[in-house]
Amino acid sequence: MDLTELSSLIYAKKLSSVEVTQRYLERIASYDPVLNAYITICADDVLEAAKTADQQLASGQAKGVLQGIPIALKDLFFTREAPTTAGSKVLQDSFPQEDAVVWKRLKDAGALLLGKTNLHEFAYGTTTENPHYGAVHNPWDLMRIAGGSSGGSAAAVAADLAPAALGTDTGGSIRIPAACSGVVGVKPTYGLVSKRGVLPLAYSLDHVGPMTRSIRDAALLLQLIAGYDVEDPSTVQREKEQYDRLLGTSLRGLRIGYDESFFFAQTDEQVKQRVRAVLKLCEEAGAMLEMVDVPMIYEVATYQAIVISSEALLVHEKWLAESAVLYGEDVRQRLATGQQYTAVDYARAMEFRDRFRRAMTQLFLQIDVLITPTIPFTATPIGDYEVLVGEEPQAIRPNLTRFTNPFNLSGLPALSLPCGHSEQGLPIGVQLVGAPFSEARLFQVGSYLEQAFPLHVPPLFS
Amino acid sequence: MDLTELSSLIYAKKLSSVEVTQRYLERIASYDPVLNAYITICADDVLEAAKTADQQLASGQAKGVLQGIPIALKDLFFTREAPTTAGSKVLQDSFPQEDAVVWKRLKDAGALLLGKTNLHEFAYGTTTENPHYGAVHNPWDLMRIAGGSSGGSAAAVAADLAPAALGTDTGGSIRIPAACSGVVGVKPTYGLVSKRGVLPLAYSLDHVGPMTRSIRDAALLLQLIAGYDVEDPSTVQREKEQYDRLLGTSLRGLRIGYDESFFFAQTDEQVKQRVRAVLKLCEEAGAMLEMVDVPMIYEVATYQAIVISSEALLVHEKWLAESAVLYGEDVRQRLATGQQYTAVDYARAMEFRDRFRRAMTQLFLQIDVLITPTIPFTATPIGDYEVLVGEEPQAIRPNLTRFTNPFNLSGLPALSLPCGHSEQGLPIGVQLVGAPFSEARLFQVGSYLEQAFPLHVPPLFS
Repeated sequence: MDLTELSSLIYAKKLSSVEVTQRYLERIASYDPVLNAYITICADDVLEAAKTADQQLASGQAKGVLQGIPIALKDLFFTREAPTTAGSKVLQDSFPQEDAVVWKRLKDAGALLLGKTNLHEFAYGTTTENPHYGAVHNPWDLMRIAGGSSGGSAAAVAADLAPAALGTDTGGSIRIPAACSGVVGVKPTYGLVSKRGVLPLAYSLDHVGPMTRSIRDAALLLQLIAGYDVEDPSTVQREKEQYDRLLGTSLRGLRIGYDESFFFAQTDEQVKQRVRAVLKLCEEAGAMLEMVDVPMIYEVATYQAIVISSEALLVHEKWLAESAVLYGEDVRQRLATGQQYTAVDYARAMEFRDRFRRAMTQLFLQIDVLITPTIPFTATPIGDYEVLVGEEPQAIRPNLTRFTNPFNLSGLPALSLPCGHSEQGLPIGVQLVGAPFSEARLFQVGSYLEQAFPLHVPPLFS
Repeated sequence: MDLTELSSLIYAKKLSSVEVTQRYLERIASYDPVLNAYITICADDVLEAAKTADQQLASGQAKGVLQGIPIALKDLFFTREAPTTAGSKVLQDSFPQEDAVVWKRLKDAGALLLGKTNLHEFAYGTTTENPHYGAVHNPWDLMRIAGGSSGGSAAAVAADLAPAALGTDTGGSIRIPAACSGVVGVKPTYGLVSKRGVLPLAYSLDHVGPMTRSIRDAALLLQLIAGYDVEDPSTVQREKEQYDRLLGTSLRGLRIGYDESFFFAQTDEQVKQRVRAVLKLCEEAGAMLEMVDVPMIYEVATYQAIVISSEALLVHEKWLAESAVLYGEDVRQRLATGQQYTAVDYARAMEFRDRFRRAMTQLFLQIDVLITPTIPFTATPIGDYEVLVGEEPQAIRPNLTRFTNPFNLSGLPALSLPCGHSEQGLPIGVQLVGAPFSEARLFQVGSYLEQAFPLHVPPLFS
């Protein structure tokens, strides 16, 4: 069941919020000990809230489309209901008194807080091997990573321990775990969704977005969280739009681009096969495929590294000075890399970024949607540093963000959705990218594709 | 005579382009030896071009509104007609093969290149005391600075050695010399005018704009140079608008803000008097005065310094390494300050900048135009480092940009126009600032005010 279905059943009074909530709590109790997707489970509080939600509905005072539906949040979103650890020891007992704006918006639509999900420490990594709260396990193979940094959110949604969740994405942290764990993950256009009340990793690259079991759910959550926030200077003022308006419409005439030279390089054969199958499906649906060269793409990683590590250090400088010992080894080292860069390095990166954005805008005059693999391989074993791609050993961490981080630097909307499984039964993700604020277009293509690749709950959890 | 009048007379064939051009060349020959406003005078070439312009007009093939009118360009704009020194020894013999986009646009409207004007070396300073080409002298008092960095453009227009000019403004480099020398200078909204083919000082702060003898001329030139340039990623796509559409219309009901706490602090009494007189004039014209506190304004200079010096070093790093000895002492030292900043410093500045922009946007929901002095005192003697403001000695250089640089960091449109003279006969400038892309509004207020403060040619040059 996805959010949309749950909402209908609750409004039709075929299911109560208490029943729904109890079901998720029971599944969490049974399965989370092996999955480790949650840092905080709001068991008693969410049941209380569910009772209230049922009463509101009974008395005609439902708040909105998510009335009585429990939702999971990456433990980077400030909530008044539960502590916000950011997956760290530094903020272990942190209890911000403000809700994140997006969480407030979901609550205003009736959502309840099911729990706060595990993540890579401070969201600064892509494997969710958390030294303080333990690794999140991949629901399709418990020996493997769920991806990160929003690994808990992805695993919880994939294993049906939550109907949907919110994540954050600075270099791929929504899309990578979505691909590893087999769910839908959306990084909206920079500026569309408020980040106020979300602990920053790197403010000019951070994005908030939905992680769901269907494209229509992603459109629904985006509809609720999108919008200008005067107190978040990254958000822009735009007319409201309907993100579900193209769902299920024909792909005829749509111009779909793909770039094999960069986005298929050092990429697992099975991943390439699945993405080629996706392109074929689009073509059969009447879309026109166009081979393109994504401009400036080979330089992106260098500049993205400068921006992310400088901005991350800006957030952590003080905490690091006071309590470096509380940080996990990998994140502490990653933060240290920010110290090597000069202001000129950063200025050069920003100048590159302006040119890259302009070049990408020009590319999207030529095509409507770019299709790429989300990541170059499937989920790797927990603890590993290298993976064989063909005969070649590849470093896991830099490769996990290789296809996703260009769209953080450019701010373009990008989503990952499942497009089948490998022979080993691991999910494979395909990434759809569009022009600024073309989320409805991405959902259109996604909703067509998901018919061919229906989600199911992993065997261990069904 | 201003551009607008010249254009009518040329089109009415009451004056030929050759006559006009000869007149400016004669004035330059007589007066520029004392003023030193020009680095290059295109004497023969511009006369040839004037002949062609007259022929075109006679045969009904005039190009546009500037047909046959000679214009001066700050010697930072690339021109195929003349070398582009940037006021430096490093680029002494530099002859770019591309015209600056804005110069191409003016030529397409019929303009001719009269000459390239003197500037602070590499535009990195506000006094135009150029160690290689000599200081530009203030046309109202030859012992004093013309302001900078577009000092030659301002002095040439003020002394009627050119009908109009283009300048660039990174921290006030159009508005400061406009105020010192007594002309109109406009720094448009960031993103409105292409900077391609203009040597950068600091790419995210640089702006190109007109320097003229009237507001209507400024509107005319802006009309010609404004517009999207796909190859300049700083420019934005917008509908064309008419910048002269509000000229001469009533100020009734306009909300005019002023901030005495910051913008009158450490400011010369005579400057304050003139700006108060301007406010009174606006009020008498039906505008509503509103005292405001410009948000975050006390922190601006710190962050502006980080951005400008980092981005300037990005441009000069290689040249400095190769030929530091070719730089003037002040610019070499200023560039060296860029080396002290880390990427975290720059990231912090950018984060401040985003918040400052948002806060300024909010301020301009409350008021239509902000009125401030352009600079806190009148033009100071060449060679001086301190000036007495009341009883207090003040450093000249940091104070010259104090009121202008907030609108480089925020990107808001700002213009300076003369509002009378001091007892010593030196021009005083008032600055009008507006919401993004509200240039037409600034011209409206400016065109009202300039009636009270008509420009005349300085006694020495008339």
